[in-house]
Amino acid sequence: MRKTIIGVMGPGNHPKDIDLHRAYQLGQLIAQEGWVLLTGGRKAGVMDAASKGSQAAGGLTVGILPDDSTSQMSEAVDIAIVTNMGSARNNINVLSSDVVVACGMGTGTASEIALALNNGKQVVLLTDAQDSQRFFTNLSPEQVFLATSPEEAIKLVKELGIGN
Amino acid sequence: MRKTIIGVMGPGNHPKDIDLHRAYQLGQLIAQEGWVLLTGGRKAGVMDAASKGSQAAGGLTVGILPDDSTSQMSEAVDIAIVTNMGSARNNINVLSSDVVVACGMGTGTASEIALALNNGKQVVLLTDAQDSQRFFTNLSPEQVFLATSPEEAIKLVKELGIGN
Amino acid sequence: MRKTIIGVMGPGNHPKDIDLHRAYQLGQLIAQEGWVLLTGGRKAGVMDAASKGSQAAGGLTVGILPDDSTSQMSEAVDIAIVTNMGSARNNINVLSSDVVVACGMGTGTASEIALALNNGKQVVLLTDAQDSQRFFTNLSPEQVFLATSPEEAIKLVKELGIGN
Amino acid sequence: MRKTIIGVMGPGNHPKDIDLHRAYQLGQLIAQEGWVLLTGGRKAGVMDAASKGSQAAGGLTVGILPDDSTSQMSEAVDIAIVTNMGSARNNINVLSSDVVVACGMGTGTASEIALALNNGKQVVLLTDAQDSQRFFTNLSPEQVFLATSPEEAIKLVKELGIGN
Repeated sequence: MRKTIIGVMGPGNHPKDIDLHRAYQLGQLIAQEGWVLLTGGRKAGVMDAASKGSQAAGGLTVGILPDDSTSQMSEAVDIAIVTNMGSARNNINVLSSDVVVACGMGTGTASEIALALNNGKQVVLLTDAQDSQRFFTNLSPEQVFLATSPEEAIKLVKELGIGN
Repeated sequence: MRKTIIGVMGPGNHPKDIDLHRAYQLGQLIAQEGWVLLTGGRKAGVMDAASKGSQAAGGLTVGILPDDSTSQMSEAVDIAIVTNMGSARNNINVLSSDVVVACGMGTGTASEIALALNNGKQVVLLTDAQDSQRFFTNLSPEQVFLATSPEEAIKLVKELGIGN
Repeated sequence: MRKTIIGVMGPGNHPKDIDLHRAYQLGQLIAQEGWVLLTGGRKAGVMDAASKGSQAAGGLTVGILPDDSTSQMSEAVDIAIVTNMGSARNNINVLSSDVVVACGMGTGTASEIALALNNGKQVVLLTDAQDSQRFFTNLSPEQVFLATSPEEAIKLVKELGIGN
Repeated sequence: MRKTIIGVMGPGNHPKDIDLHRAYQLGQLIAQEGWVLLTGGRKAGVMDAASKGSQAAGGLTVGILPDDSTSQMSEAVDIAIVTNMGSARNNINVLSSDVVVACGMGTGTASEIALALNNGKQVVLLTDAQDSQRFFTNLSPEQVFLATSPEEAIKLVKELGIGN
């Protein structure tokens, strides 16, 4: 039986403290639901924090790595998928996720949200940046859901019927 | 000697009339500079219009197709690159372009702009949507340039030193 | 801690009975070692048989799907990675595997063996076809190892130091 | 009108002199037919030699690069497609070619032949290695054609109805 996979996407470089804190909590909450966490797999920023949170709560973590090896991998990744595709792997991140939770914002994160929407996926936005909220909500109103906390993000995921 | 390639990215589905008009003009202007036009290659929206404009002005057009064949290809594509990678091909679109001109907006276009910025590319935004202008300018102020017409877009491309 | 991943590659279409039988056994043996099984994920041929064998022995299975959804997925896949990249996903299959075991032969399998060798990976060939053995051994003598049974294949994997 | 594209695939590293000589001739002959040459684009081996031959005869050359820039590109490439996908770009090479001519053999070349066959493409094998001829002919008898010279390879391409 295929496991439910929740993708958590966020900045690897120069993340804000609040995004790291929220990512760790998201990882914990996802693990507590018995869901698999999927991230971009690098030992950096939101990817690393979410993976550590999931691992701390006993969850299973998948990392979709952009490089050709696991040398830059988060130590909290259990299953490493090595793509050697750079940012093109962002499309795999979102296609493999039952739902995408965007935690924070950056150019890579923006590409993942847009690719998720382009592929018909639902996206929970966990960011305080109003220009991001406005842009993506305008881009695809029926696929974007705004959350103000990790708990609310998980509540939205459940309301979308994910993992049932 | 490698040819200069200008990527024109814009919505394939439900494009606005003004975006189609501008895309056609962009294609013409790019051809007149002796540059190669690169698009997503499909027989739809901005991709198709830009390719037709380029072809009408005697230019060379490259189409990076998402499908596994050329069956959905714009008839104005000279060189078809068949990727069978869906939206992951958007990363190839931007990596292969010396500069990206975004004409209009949609989920695929947004992913291409974000991927371009993520890969260190410069992007000329040709759109009247202020939330798009604000979002991408905030995301990466030094890589995003705003144009209000095809002519201004090409002027900006030249000022960036492309094609010299 | 990253889990050890063993890739089992073999024909999806028109597999031989002996290849299916061996694939099922490989899946069982891999699970018994505590390793993760990685396949191309489809509900067909060697991929499906190996995944079923692993699942029957309580193992964890990863499927790297060529399509844009899980609709053609083996029911014995636990973690589905959805690539929408067709045969280009074969490169991800081999990069993500600590070692590749080729069970049977076909055009897809041949591409995976060649890509594995091209990426510096070691390959255990479990096939009775002498032209295949000769071709790949000649192609890269130091990376190819011949097995005549699933048990011998696993023994070779251990001798290569995988999973220690 | 889409241009006819002939893919020439062969070893980048440690090519044989005869393969380089044949690749150069293939490039020339392809250009003389008015066809576009497609290669893996690197400044190495068969890719470089074929591109130089085509360029010397006034042809147009496309290079599908594995890297994230054009820094390793053959100087005889006109149109550079930058994939940043490593060997996964081999699938794009074959999908984008109307027919594949394999000149020499190596792990990358073997993967391209196998991927071409897997995608239903026809392959002309220009190699003296009998184990290669035997292996690929057995793998897919109806898609593989053996040539003993560049001239014969082009003759076979024409007999397949390519470029009409």
